[in-house]
Amino acid sequence: MCAMLLGPSHPLHADATAQARLTGALTGNQPEITPVWFMRQAGRSLPEYRALRVGNQMLDACLSPTLASEITLQPVRRHGVDAGIFFSDIVVPLRLVGVDVRIEPGTGPVFGQPLEGGREVAALTRIDPRDVIAAGEPVWEAVALAVSMLRSLGAERGEPLPLIGFAGAPFTLAAYMVEGRPSKDQWAARALMHRDPAAWSALMEWTADLTGLFLRCQVENGASAGQLFDTWAGNLSADDYVRYAAPATSQALSHLRDLTYHPGPAADERERPVPIIHFGLGTGELLGAMRDVGVDALGIDYRIPLDEANRRLGGAVALQGNLDPSMLAAPDDVLTRAVIDVLERGAPAPGHVFNLGHGVPAAADPDVLSRVVTLVHEWRRPAGAADA
Amino acid sequence: MCAMLLGPSHPLHADATAQARLTGALTGNQPEITPVWFMRQAGRSLPEYRALRVGNQMLDACLSPTLASEITLQPVRRHGVDAGIFFSDIVVPLRLVGVDVRIEPGTGPVFGQPLEGGREVAALTRIDPRDVIAAGEPVWEAVALAVSMLRSLGAERGEPLPLIGFAGAPFTLAAYMVEGRPSKDQWAARALMHRDPAAWSALMEWTADLTGLFLRCQVENGASAGQLFDTWAGNLSADDYVRYAAPATSQALSHLRDLTYHPGPAADERERPVPIIHFGLGTGELLGAMRDVGVDALGIDYRIPLDEANRRLGGAVALQGNLDPSMLAAPDDVLTRAVIDVLERGAPAPGHVFNLGHGVPAAADPDVLSRVVTLVHEWRRPAGAADA
Repeated sequence: MCAMLLGPSHPLHADATAQARLTGALTGNQPEITPVWFMRQAGRSLPEYRALRVGNQMLDACLSPTLASEITLQPVRRHGVDAGIFFSDIVVPLRLVGVDVRIEPGTGPVFGQPLEGGREVAALTRIDPRDVIAAGEPVWEAVALAVSMLRSLGAERGEPLPLIGFAGAPFTLAAYMVEGRPSKDQWAARALMHRDPAAWSALMEWTADLTGLFLRCQVENGASAGQLFDTWAGNLSADDYVRYAAPATSQALSHLRDLTYHPGPAADERERPVPIIHFGLGTGELLGAMRDVGVDALGIDYRIPLDEANRRLGGAVALQGNLDPSMLAAPDDVLTRAVIDVLERGAPAPGHVFNLGHGVPAAADPDVLSRVVTLVHEWRRPAGAADA
Repeated sequence: MCAMLLGPSHPLHADATAQARLTGALTGNQPEITPVWFMRQAGRSLPEYRALRVGNQMLDACLSPTLASEITLQPVRRHGVDAGIFFSDIVVPLRLVGVDVRIEPGTGPVFGQPLEGGREVAALTRIDPRDVIAAGEPVWEAVALAVSMLRSLGAERGEPLPLIGFAGAPFTLAAYMVEGRPSKDQWAARALMHRDPAAWSALMEWTADLTGLFLRCQVENGASAGQLFDTWAGNLSADDYVRYAAPATSQALSHLRDLTYHPGPAADERERPVPIIHFGLGTGELLGAMRDVGVDALGIDYRIPLDEANRRLGGAVALQGNLDPSMLAAPDDVLTRAVIDVLERGAPAPGHVFNLGHGVPAAADPDVLSRVVTLVHEWRRPAGAADA
């Protein structure tokens, strides 16, 4: 049940996850042990995932409370990471409100009717984005189940295990809808924003509300943080990002601004806004603008060292990242040095969550991922790092 | 005929193209009128290209002297650009030496046998890269034909029209061979470089000689400049680029270092090295390293303004670029402002060749491209720009 159905929203999860390493690192209380999770940790690299997905279409799995929650938990059990990322896909909210989209194996999201211009956008935006709240019931149920399973697992471990909510940013979602399928550079979408800025703007506002509510309902059902995936933002020039993408991203996040969590055991500690992580590929030129939409942390891909990212961001937000996934294939000593290099470069930031600099590749060896978690957890940040 | 077949190489083209706007801009003699051409100008955006390609596979067209030269000329006739780019594909030299590769419409290069590791690399590198010289006869013939046709067209226009040679950089070529087909992030190739650096290095050295000779023979048959396409370099971290890609790129270019052209009408003016342009997508973090392989100009994609690129490069090389191709869909006034913005930002560089910041999209309107050429040719650089 999404609280918005009941009326004014209220925090639902002043619970055990509040003191987790992850939320600490994202909110200015970096723990001694650096938290770690992996983008796309719940997925094809795990044999237990492939076994579960047999005979299940991707979007059907996303909409099954038992499957989606179980898949969310698999990597947390196996690797010992510090958080679950809710198993979903950025197009799930579109499917929930009736958009004709399927995920083709080996290809990705494919739409029945790409949005060619203003007419198609007008037809789409006649759907009320708030419909996602009622239609998403199986998803919110999956979230609540995953949170409950993480709570049990965390109790066994003696370490709270938060759930990170999952949503696409408006630009990447809109780009998929215009292109109709994955594309190298989103030319059709970027052309539409220049050719018909009014249609583009209407599309982005609608998408912002849809994906913002999709993330909100995950938080209301127990997710303690959210990650907004703007996968393709790096294919925008900085000017276009600021003009044609960032405002809708802020609008999406506006749906979460009143949500808070209780950060510690002291009863008088004040509620804090739910932390949001913002990630895109190849966004070295956009980091400042991606910070300025109003987020707590930036996910950095593997192309920029974290110390350089922190410099570009003025030390204003926590960082997440950024081991090059291709390092997972390296010999042990090379991988170890690479992991420690990421940790050392991340230490001066106001907070650091270890992650890969891109999603886990399907061909990655799960045992290597587990080894990375051990390496991260054994490392201790140098005294004085980012104590400011 | 490639001069290497005859013995020591010698310059073959101290000809009318020597004073062209393009080579001037690339070699420190920026002309009053900024030269312009478009990456992938010879291709699917032109109806005359689509008509000619009917019934011809891509690689067959590349290996037909009449088709390849005619396709090279089409955009020069239609748009009035200042140079032809030789119609080819980066995998052509691989096909010439017998590698099983075809270009699938809508997909790109697909290899019969992806290189999984050291064993496949060893089998490949038993081929002598110098075989490309004899096998490439139809290609060199196409080059010579295109040069001759450009010379005639240039004489009509009263403006020399040079041909730019076309080759892929070793990393991008090797990445295709390892992946076996186009991929989003070249994970398999990047994993191989970490897992088996010796195999990677052998592959890169072989590829460097192959593609270097492929470009050399184009220059020996009349191309006045060369562009090395390292399309996927931007998917490497800066460390990996320097360690695993740049040395082979330098090696490829070593095959061209002794080639010169005669820059002007004065008989005593000394021969100059043939200028090389180096281009990759999303390479904002790599510009210095891409300069340092030894090139005359860097092609800049649309993600970084040219003045910022010039700053990062220390004003050391000419720049090429970088109108965002999505601007081709914009209303006239927006497009005009964008073109002028690129020209103004490029003016302080030691040389500027106008281009798009990526290849011409298939859906681009050819008339708009022609209009861009007119805008560029009508513009005059401010007095004092880059006179140093």
